[in-house]
Amino acid sequence: MRTTTAWQAHGTTDLRRETITRRDPRRDDVVVRVDFCGVCHTDLHALRSHRGEDPLVPGHEFTGVVTDVGPDVTGFRVGDAVAVGNIVDSCGVCTMCAAGQENFCREFPTLTYGGTDRHDGSTTLGGFAREYVVRDRFAYPLPAGLDPAGAASLMCAGITVWEPLRALGVGPGTRVAVSGLGGLGHLAVKFAAALGAEVAVVSRSADRAAEAARLGAHDLVDSTDPAGMAAARDRFDVLIDTIPVPHDVGPYLGLVAVDGTLSHLGHLGPITVDAMDLLVGRKKLSSAGSGGQPATAAMLDFCTTHGITADIELVPSAEVVTALDRLERNDVRYRFVLDLSDLS
Amino acid sequence: MRTTTAWQAHGTTDLRRETITRRDPRRDDVVVRVDFCGVCHTDLHALRSHRGEDPLVPGHEFTGVVTDVGPDVTGFRVGDAVAVGNIVDSCGVCTMCAAGQENFCREFPTLTYGGTDRHDGSTTLGGFAREYVVRDRFAYPLPAGLDPAGAASLMCAGITVWEPLRALGVGPGTRVAVSGLGGLGHLAVKFAAALGAEVAVVSRSADRAAEAARLGAHDLVDSTDPAGMAAARDRFDVLIDTIPVPHDVGPYLGLVAVDGTLSHLGHLGPITVDAMDLLVGRKKLSSAGSGGQPATAAMLDFCTTHGITADIELVPSAEVVTALDRLERNDVRYRFVLDLSDLS
Repeated sequence: MRTTTAWQAHGTTDLRRETITRRDPRRDDVVVRVDFCGVCHTDLHALRSHRGEDPLVPGHEFTGVVTDVGPDVTGFRVGDAVAVGNIVDSCGVCTMCAAGQENFCREFPTLTYGGTDRHDGSTTLGGFAREYVVRDRFAYPLPAGLDPAGAASLMCAGITVWEPLRALGVGPGTRVAVSGLGGLGHLAVKFAAALGAEVAVVSRSADRAAEAARLGAHDLVDSTDPAGMAAARDRFDVLIDTIPVPHDVGPYLGLVAVDGTLSHLGHLGPITVDAMDLLVGRKKLSSAGSGGQPATAAMLDFCTTHGITADIELVPSAEVVTALDRLERNDVRYRFVLDLSDLS
Repeated sequence: MRTTTAWQAHGTTDLRRETITRRDPRRDDVVVRVDFCGVCHTDLHALRSHRGEDPLVPGHEFTGVVTDVGPDVTGFRVGDAVAVGNIVDSCGVCTMCAAGQENFCREFPTLTYGGTDRHDGSTTLGGFAREYVVRDRFAYPLPAGLDPAGAASLMCAGITVWEPLRALGVGPGTRVAVSGLGGLGHLAVKFAAALGAEVAVVSRSADRAAEAARLGAHDLVDSTDPAGMAAARDRFDVLIDTIPVPHDVGPYLGLVAVDGTLSHLGHLGPITVDAMDLLVGRKKLSSAGSGGQPATAAMLDFCTTHGITADIELVPSAEVVTALDRLERNDVRYRFVLDLSDLS
């Protein structure tokens, strides 16, 4: 075993700088020095619901540099820049894995933290740490053109919005709305605009119109304005709903065009929808989260081509608790990324 | 005004043979002698929730013969066989009406019963009656090749399953499952098979396999058998869920393939779905009900080509209360149709 320094949860509000162990690299492992790790709503949820049975080190979107490799690793060498997302292993043999949809692995993929390692049964500990050991298949070469701090958040927020945009065929001529202009939402706007779609932001803050335009949106629909919402009825082929708290999807379904889809990404848990809100317009409700290996690699290629990374607030990792508290109040533009060099 | 005989609701369980009034035909009206009217779950629901404020004569899928026409009617003549469904008017000018999706009319379509007439403000009274007066646009020529009793149920049950099958692109190569083998479900099986899809029935009654095969299904998945359900996981591109009572859609979403859709048709009201059941497999939830003028006409053409009508139990209309009681117990193969000649 090897050791590294990490921010480990104590209770539901505190993370403490502590020494944790990592496995020695297996034959197909790469050892990553974690430089930057994004802060996701999932991290906040995991901390707030942490009961203490299992150790918790959050963090599942990070970039860094390879410091060691197992003997069977051929795709990475020491010194390579890499990125890791929220999946670090899968069965590898089921139909989903065979199709490159490891995120839908029939045996459920191994999550980057809070998962159970498929070999030693240990609880995985996440990227709020200076080092991570990951199976090579779930590490991605980080393209040289991407800022490694801003790229960290592509690995969860980015792929989560990329998946539905691609699955729903968004491209030139598609009318896309994005509700919730946070970590997921701002990337959804950038991606949809770069894919050639006509993009609108749906927000309860009309004063964010200029900011929406800066991200690539063509206009903003004020969700607090009944006339504006009525005018936008049935307007969008795809609505990417990234609102991170439980909410009534009815008004948002009203904005979806006939045969269109609302993709509900902002939070897990039960969603209640009135059948009539789907029936009138034959509308669809979907969800998405993370992606498989080919889709993640394709997203990184697309981001390199279009120069897209997340808009972030980079903070020393020692400020992680403050960052989580601010995220809880939606006080971030648009994603916190921890600089983990202070753990060296 | 003119009069006719109808089965009118008294309270939540009784329908009585009474004389009701119909409007004299307007310039674009056709007067229909109702010969056969199907009995829908909606009728049952309307009766059971009838509070007595408004008069209620159920019935919204019927066939008959034209007995009079208004002066502007060019598409029908006295003696023509016609069919009418659950929509009898719409605004005619909104974008939905202009697109032939009168069922999604921005002003909401006028329902065949329990609706409000757009001209005189009266409450519409349905097809459990010997005569109906309907705007010509919402009467359909009944093809000569279709049995008028079995065709009645095409006008609600038929179009309700036709819409999602067509919108979801069902055809050769598509894998379709149908849950709930009742009025809607048995037509969904017939339609999907005739469209060239591979069709399975999902049922808690494994002993219905032969019956499912007779309707055109290739096999039956026993929903009470965990092994069978597990084996059918992610198997179907489209699942037409016609179960007519609130139920957990989670196990049925488990049968839907990646990027596939569960179309929830069996009942209106709230549907609660776990986001994870949609997320894993990027699955979609949709709904449908009735259809616009072009789709309804296309469905009738398709049924004529393929010789499809509903499998019905034809009963004298005097047995309507018994039929509704039996429908409530799912004791019907597969749709009751009232023979209204006993009202002459």
